[in-house]
Amino acid sequence: MALRYRAHLGASKNLIESYFSSLEEDRVLAKYSAMVMLAHVKTLLSQGVIPKVRGESVSKALVEVVKSKGEALYKWISERGHYFEDVFEALEAYLHEVAGVGAGYIAIGRSRNDHVAAVLRLFIRDRVLEVLQKLIELRRALLDKAMEFREVIIPYFTHGQVAQCGSASVYFASYEYTFSNIWRLLIQGLEMLNENPLGSGAADGSLLNLDRGRLAEMLCFSDSLIPPYYSTGSRLFALYHLNTLSLLMLEISRFAEDMLTINSLIPGAINPPIEHVATSSIMPHKRNLVTMEIARARASKVLGYVVASQSIYKGLPYGYNLDLQEINSLIMQAFDIASSTLDVLTDFASRLHLSGDAFLKYLIDKPCWSSELVEYIALTSGRPAREVYSAVAKLFESCNSVDEKCVSRVLTAYGLSVHDMLNIIKNKPVEISVKKMLEDAWSRLEKDRATLKNVSELLEKCTAELLSYSS
Amino acid sequence: MALRYRAHLGASKNLIESYFSSLEEDRVLAKYSAMVMLAHVKTLLSQGVIPKVRGESVSKALVEVVKSKGEALYKWISERGHYFEDVFEALEAYLHEVAGVGAGYIAIGRSRNDHVAAVLRLFIRDRVLEVLQKLIELRRALLDKAMEFREVIIPYFTHGQVAQCGSASVYFASYEYTFSNIWRLLIQGLEMLNENPLGSGAADGSLLNLDRGRLAEMLCFSDSLIPPYYSTGSRLFALYHLNTLSLLMLEISRFAEDMLTINSLIPGAINPPIEHVATSSIMPHKRNLVTMEIARARASKVLGYVVASQSIYKGLPYGYNLDLQEINSLIMQAFDIASSTLDVLTDFASRLHLSGDAFLKYLIDKPCWSSELVEYIALTSGRPAREVYSAVAKLFESCNSVDEKCVSRVLTAYGLSVHDMLNIIKNKPVEISVKKMLEDAWSRLEKDRATLKNVSELLEKCTAELLSYSS
Amino acid sequence: MALRYRAHLGASKNLIESYFSSLEEDRVLAKYSAMVMLAHVKTLLSQGVIPKVRGESVSKALVEVVKSKGEALYKWISERGHYFEDVFEALEAYLHEVAGVGAGYIAIGRSRNDHVAAVLRLFIRDRVLEVLQKLIELRRALLDKAMEFREVIIPYFTHGQVAQCGSASVYFASYEYTFSNIWRLLIQGLEMLNENPLGSGAADGSLLNLDRGRLAEMLCFSDSLIPPYYSTGSRLFALYHLNTLSLLMLEISRFAEDMLTINSLIPGAINPPIEHVATSSIMPHKRNLVTMEIARARASKVLGYVVASQSIYKGLPYGYNLDLQEINSLIMQAFDIASSTLDVLTDFASRLHLSGDAFLKYLIDKPCWSSELVEYIALTSGRPAREVYSAVAKLFESCNSVDEKCVSRVLTAYGLSVHDMLNIIKNKPVEISVKKMLEDAWSRLEKDRATLKNVSELLEKCTAELLSYSS
Amino acid sequence: MALRYRAHLGASKNLIESYFSSLEEDRVLAKYSAMVMLAHVKTLLSQGVIPKVRGESVSKALVEVVKSKGEALYKWISERGHYFEDVFEALEAYLHEVAGVGAGYIAIGRSRNDHVAAVLRLFIRDRVLEVLQKLIELRRALLDKAMEFREVIIPYFTHGQVAQCGSASVYFASYEYTFSNIWRLLIQGLEMLNENPLGSGAADGSLLNLDRGRLAEMLCFSDSLIPPYYSTGSRLFALYHLNTLSLLMLEISRFAEDMLTINSLIPGAINPPIEHVATSSIMPHKRNLVTMEIARARASKVLGYVVASQSIYKGLPYGYNLDLQEINSLIMQAFDIASSTLDVLTDFASRLHLSGDAFLKYLIDKPCWSSELVEYIALTSGRPAREVYSAVAKLFESCNSVDEKCVSRVLTAYGLSVHDMLNIIKNKPVEISVKKMLEDAWSRLEKDRATLKNVSELLEKCTAELLSYSS
Repeated sequence: MALRYRAHLGASKNLIESYFSSLEEDRVLAKYSAMVMLAHVKTLLSQGVIPKVRGESVSKALVEVVKSKGEALYKWISERGHYFEDVFEALEAYLHEVAGVGAGYIAIGRSRNDHVAAVLRLFIRDRVLEVLQKLIELRRALLDKAMEFREVIIPYFTHGQVAQCGSASVYFASYEYTFSNIWRLLIQGLEMLNENPLGSGAADGSLLNLDRGRLAEMLCFSDSLIPPYYSTGSRLFALYHLNTLSLLMLEISRFAEDMLTINSLIPGAINPPIEHVATSSIMPHKRNLVTMEIARARASKVLGYVVASQSIYKGLPYGYNLDLQEINSLIMQAFDIASSTLDVLTDFASRLHLSGDAFLKYLIDKPCWSSELVEYIALTSGRPAREVYSAVAKLFESCNSVDEKCVSRVLTAYGLSVHDMLNIIKNKPVEISVKKMLEDAWSRLEKDRATLKNVSELLEKCTAELLSYSS
Repeated sequence: MALRYRAHLGASKNLIESYFSSLEEDRVLAKYSAMVMLAHVKTLLSQGVIPKVRGESVSKALVEVVKSKGEALYKWISERGHYFEDVFEALEAYLHEVAGVGAGYIAIGRSRNDHVAAVLRLFIRDRVLEVLQKLIELRRALLDKAMEFREVIIPYFTHGQVAQCGSASVYFASYEYTFSNIWRLLIQGLEMLNENPLGSGAADGSLLNLDRGRLAEMLCFSDSLIPPYYSTGSRLFALYHLNTLSLLMLEISRFAEDMLTINSLIPGAINPPIEHVATSSIMPHKRNLVTMEIARARASKVLGYVVASQSIYKGLPYGYNLDLQEINSLIMQAFDIASSTLDVLTDFASRLHLSGDAFLKYLIDKPCWSSELVEYIALTSGRPAREVYSAVAKLFESCNSVDEKCVSRVLTAYGLSVHDMLNIIKNKPVEISVKKMLEDAWSRLEKDRATLKNVSELLEKCTAELLSYSS
Repeated sequence: MALRYRAHLGASKNLIESYFSSLEEDRVLAKYSAMVMLAHVKTLLSQGVIPKVRGESVSKALVEVVKSKGEALYKWISERGHYFEDVFEALEAYLHEVAGVGAGYIAIGRSRNDHVAAVLRLFIRDRVLEVLQKLIELRRALLDKAMEFREVIIPYFTHGQVAQCGSASVYFASYEYTFSNIWRLLIQGLEMLNENPLGSGAADGSLLNLDRGRLAEMLCFSDSLIPPYYSTGSRLFALYHLNTLSLLMLEISRFAEDMLTINSLIPGAINPPIEHVATSSIMPHKRNLVTMEIARARASKVLGYVVASQSIYKGLPYGYNLDLQEINSLIMQAFDIASSTLDVLTDFASRLHLSGDAFLKYLIDKPCWSSELVEYIALTSGRPAREVYSAVAKLFESCNSVDEKCVSRVLTAYGLSVHDMLNIIKNKPVEISVKKMLEDAWSRLEKDRATLKNVSELLEKCTAELLSYSS
Repeated sequence: MALRYRAHLGASKNLIESYFSSLEEDRVLAKYSAMVMLAHVKTLLSQGVIPKVRGESVSKALVEVVKSKGEALYKWISERGHYFEDVFEALEAYLHEVAGVGAGYIAIGRSRNDHVAAVLRLFIRDRVLEVLQKLIELRRALLDKAMEFREVIIPYFTHGQVAQCGSASVYFASYEYTFSNIWRLLIQGLEMLNENPLGSGAADGSLLNLDRGRLAEMLCFSDSLIPPYYSTGSRLFALYHLNTLSLLMLEISRFAEDMLTINSLIPGAINPPIEHVATSSIMPHKRNLVTMEIARARASKVLGYVVASQSIYKGLPYGYNLDLQEINSLIMQAFDIASSTLDVLTDFASRLHLSGDAFLKYLIDKPCWSSELVEYIALTSGRPAREVYSAVAKLFESCNSVDEKCVSRVLTAYGLSVHDMLNIIKNKPVEISVKKMLEDAWSRLEKDRATLKNVSELLEKCTAELLSYSS
């Protein structure tokens, strides 16, 4: 029978064990668990704590688990047909079976608590890199659109109403800038993911003086010293990244809201890729932007996971409590959502088409230039802007509704036409600066891309060395 | 090729379709979708809208889906190997294939929007009944313990510290009372689950004058009229029950916190069933109450689902938006958590053992009777209670620490002993009233059990009739 | 110097005391604290625990605090110039000063824990009644509009797009129905607010056998027995009502979203009362529906308070913990938001004007009748609805865009005109049933109004008796 | 009569205006609003857009508002006795009154939207610096305790139970490390607070080519270009900091939970400063750690504000919506909580005393060395650790309960005593490394202190220049 920690306690009951076992959620952690254990075993070997031959057969088994991305382990588990508490118990039982007596030596200088703290860092680090890469692609798609639709004049909204108008470039550049900020928040969080919790035991260290430097090297961790109670009891590194994912999804949700609003407000203005559209089962005329609706809803889900995680964390005394295990699946789901949503959004954005004609038709009778009109009169006449504002406001008030006739009446009072106003708008300072704005954005993107490439290559190198033969 | 609504739109792309398809989450809804469709088809038949032979073959296919709990449908889907938008699209495609041309007639007088509103009500209603039943069992277990440990004196805490002490009955009765309140909140919510949204079309009704009374009868819905935009656009009925599940889990979390605290504070006082305990992989002396830790964490998860759902709902204009689909899986997860946690908690509570000796040993040097001492002196001497309080407080202050010696000194000053105080406590009014408190609780429980039985039987009767042959 | 419980502890420090004192938040509880204390004193008097003359001077002082709505007490506090822990400590100190030695007798048979549980119930009960009354007014305003705009055809949306169209009555009736459901949830919660926690001591009762029946009578509480640990440790009654306020605000937020959407989408369609509109400081043409934006945001605030409260509650062991005090201000803020938002919304709704012409102009080229067209052809031809759907869908696909020309082409294919379709829509079953729907709503409203009146009168009677002279 | 933007709309109604006015919440923003306006006016002056004399009298008035921290403005407002929409409307009206016609010139090249985006950055930046400073003080207090109680052996918990034991230094160092991580997260967020949103108009720039470099200089903003729709529509900078405050409060809550747990579990072990303790009004023996309870609850409040803010933000289309205004007060409250809690916690920590004797007494019969025992036997015997673990576990199982006798029996089996185990523990690697751990912490603290000082001095210099005379 397989090794079970609870063997010393006695009874077992399916209903109960399935309740607290994390084995299913741990599946994606299996590879990382084996990596951490492998680094541990190699260190024990190099420190002579485990006999060479025995240690090497354990290492070999671990390399196989890593290379199979955990499948080797989970296949074995499914054949056992009973619960393990978690991937760590299962992995140790597996090693006992496939690598024999040597596996008995590995339970020194470690605990599940410091190991899971390392495993989660590796897992999250990989997923952060994945999100960073997808953000690079999204940002590129947005900047491409900012260039492509440079000449399209679109409305800019405040309070859900048309406020101003101008080149579509500013719209795409605004979101690219937002996502570049979020990119920075994510990469700044790598520092906590690089902390090395190994050697911290269950709460306050172990008796074995593990070579932490070597452990850090094999897992691409920083070699600075961190207090063991922090190592094992804290999930700050995970909560930080969950927070950032929530911010990311919020911004995506606002983009989705924009698309849905414009799709409803200005017929034909945006031409989304057809796969993102669904129709109705009974109203054959409907064209629903379903991916945008789902993206918007999923932002709320990630917020829910933030709340769940922080509420779990908040009431706990320090040190490891099993409650922390429940945070793991929340983090995993948040990354799944962020990652798939970025795929969908990049696909959407990169194939989005704007119709300048449709926008123009919509804007033609809307005074989206009213603030510029006030400024224009004020600047050319030297009158105080507030005074001009009052005069223009009075003209608008005298209309029954703000329509083509009204617009024309207001402009005529100042000897201007809609055409004049569009010209004024096309030459306002922000339009002039768009070129530089986009150049800055492209070079920032290129810099970020290079930074990410370096980080990724470094991690790959560590992993390659970890999996290499010499212990 | 199977029927697809989007056939008229063209392109399809896996990445995108998997993003907005709810097919996987809908699996547990399949049975209810078929039930609603069956009621619809039977009504169409009785109104002559669908030819008899055709309608009956559709009905037969639907009965099979219901009886297989949706497996008939999902087996068919998995053989198709492509996405459907949701269970409704899949079900209709399935009917086209197995029941032939008759399936074309069912797309009248209905939409996915009114159908999903009915399906969710049926699903939630069943799960509410399940939770209500499990709550009955938990309450019974708690009352059993209240009887069993009537004579055990336990501490009552405020601010995490021993405040008073008394019979353990009050402890168990308190939780039973809490859960009886939650039981009532759940059953009060049935009213919204019994609303009949059928016939509401996508948003504002259909052209066909469906026999709503007949539909209501077959699905055990109320026959009152509800506005169609409410029917299709509202999820109030779901959010209400999610809220109640969150309240339920909160109270369970506090019970778990109690168990964890006492387990840590008073060695040997509670003897939990061994399956609920895990040990450490490296500290062989540890006995961790793992199910209680998990229950505590899962309460936070349900709170997270509340936030996710309400945040999804909040920003939406009325009418159906696909965002609402994302609420479904949150509700399902919340019911899964509530249901399994109730199983675990009832198992825990019904096998829990308290050690009167361990509690007594702990209490013997704690002045858990200090407020009663003040009252006793005040009542017997006629002095103002606040004055007595001050005198007793001064005695406590004069001790270095509140220990056995201090306790003895304070009591001696009034010619009393710990034994006297325990006697006083055992005879305080609340102890006298425990008997009646428990009798009230048992009879409330019995009444609730009977109510629930009636409701369940009624629903079973409706379903039996729905599945019966005559259309 | 005024009485302080901490006098026996010694040191005091402003920074610290201001941190945990709830004196400011308690201001609105002062009246209720005095009511509960008055009921307590009268009961002590009737049981002979407090000497008659002394008790009556305390009663007199308490009546004054109640009648001044707490001002008598807070004026006294502000003259003291130091912190009290809470309103209870302050009230007792006040009584000592104004009613002399008799005040020393009241500290028996009670604790802050059972008293605050009673006080919060009284406070919340009053605020629930206030919200119930305002909901009655809002519902009346909505039903008035449902009658007034019976003939106005408006669009009904799904996925943020026009789906169907029909009488505006259904729109207003839908919200009225929603709010009637919430009304019921609130009044169902009164049961927990009527529980009598008095006599529960700090956690497990007191030595004095208080006449709970008499206490219940004076405060309009139910006379059933509740376990003392529940009484003092639970806030279920408060969390339930907070949840319901959140549901209320969510629905209001959706209404606000509707108004903002229509205001932006269909120029001139809604004519909101001018006070609800603000303009821009620089764009003189802007008309922003500011109250609707704020209402929408405040819904999120209440959700935040739900999270804060449940997260506070979740990790606590049973029994009173000071953390519970922090829930109070969250509840108060939620009621403030709900109450003022209802005022604003009722003002908005009751003065809202819809322009049938503007809606018609918007709808004229939108196939808001497409599902009815499919049904109409299917019903009149006997063809399967899905087959007709496909045919109509193909017609729509053949248009470049869904505009007036397209609409005309589709309809002509079936020998129909837009005029015909509007006629069909005006006669669909839901339109026929509107009359009955509104009659049902009015009679439900009248019933609810009467119920509320009865409850309010009962409470007023209890309070009048409590404040009357005879003890 | 004072200038009102809504003058052109007409009607005004108190109930409504008080609902959407932010004037009260804006009080703390008044100083920053005047600073931003002052930078704007000086730039207009230097660009010749406002006549020199007129501009200077406006500047003078603004300097006065800044220097009075907004009081000059709010005193004026309170004398007006009516609502303004917000501080911006009020400030402009004020300038019109005190600086005359020159005030009319300032309404150019700006909007409330870009100004509020700048004002919030200034406000949050100042509060972040305040929190950073308080974190420095808290970290210092924790490191002081880590040094002071270096020799005190305390228990380290997992699953709420004693797991290991060791020097108290690790405990304090763990929290210091946590707070140093949070310190870094906060200072990393300064980048977004230094963005310059001025010149962005309402949504897409203004006609006036403002000297953004000069504006940036006067307000200590970065001079890089940011897209105007981002500038005015985004609150990412605020949500990020709110998230970080929530993480900060969570960690404080866990510290509070630790203190409450130990206070309850190990009598006399911690000796908190007396001002942080309250007693009961009826149980004279109680010593409640009230500040820790409140801190724990306030963590939940900040989480609630996170939810409120993100839920507000999530559903909004881009560009400014008034909903964003409601986020401001949530941010302010979060800073108030974080700031006062840090004061209280630093006071608590810096005066906390640990009793080595009380801890020792508690630990003497607890096998807090069980994992080290396993490791010790394994390392000295060369046997596999898992095998040793099983042997030790069997010994523990053979005890009835884990008490002094059991502990002695287990140890005797290996020829060891409790004294031996304590010696082994005192010499485990983590204990040896504590010295270096603390040295690292002190030097990190010193570095952070210096960084903060530089930032603060830079900001003071900018402000001094802004307020200086030359325009």
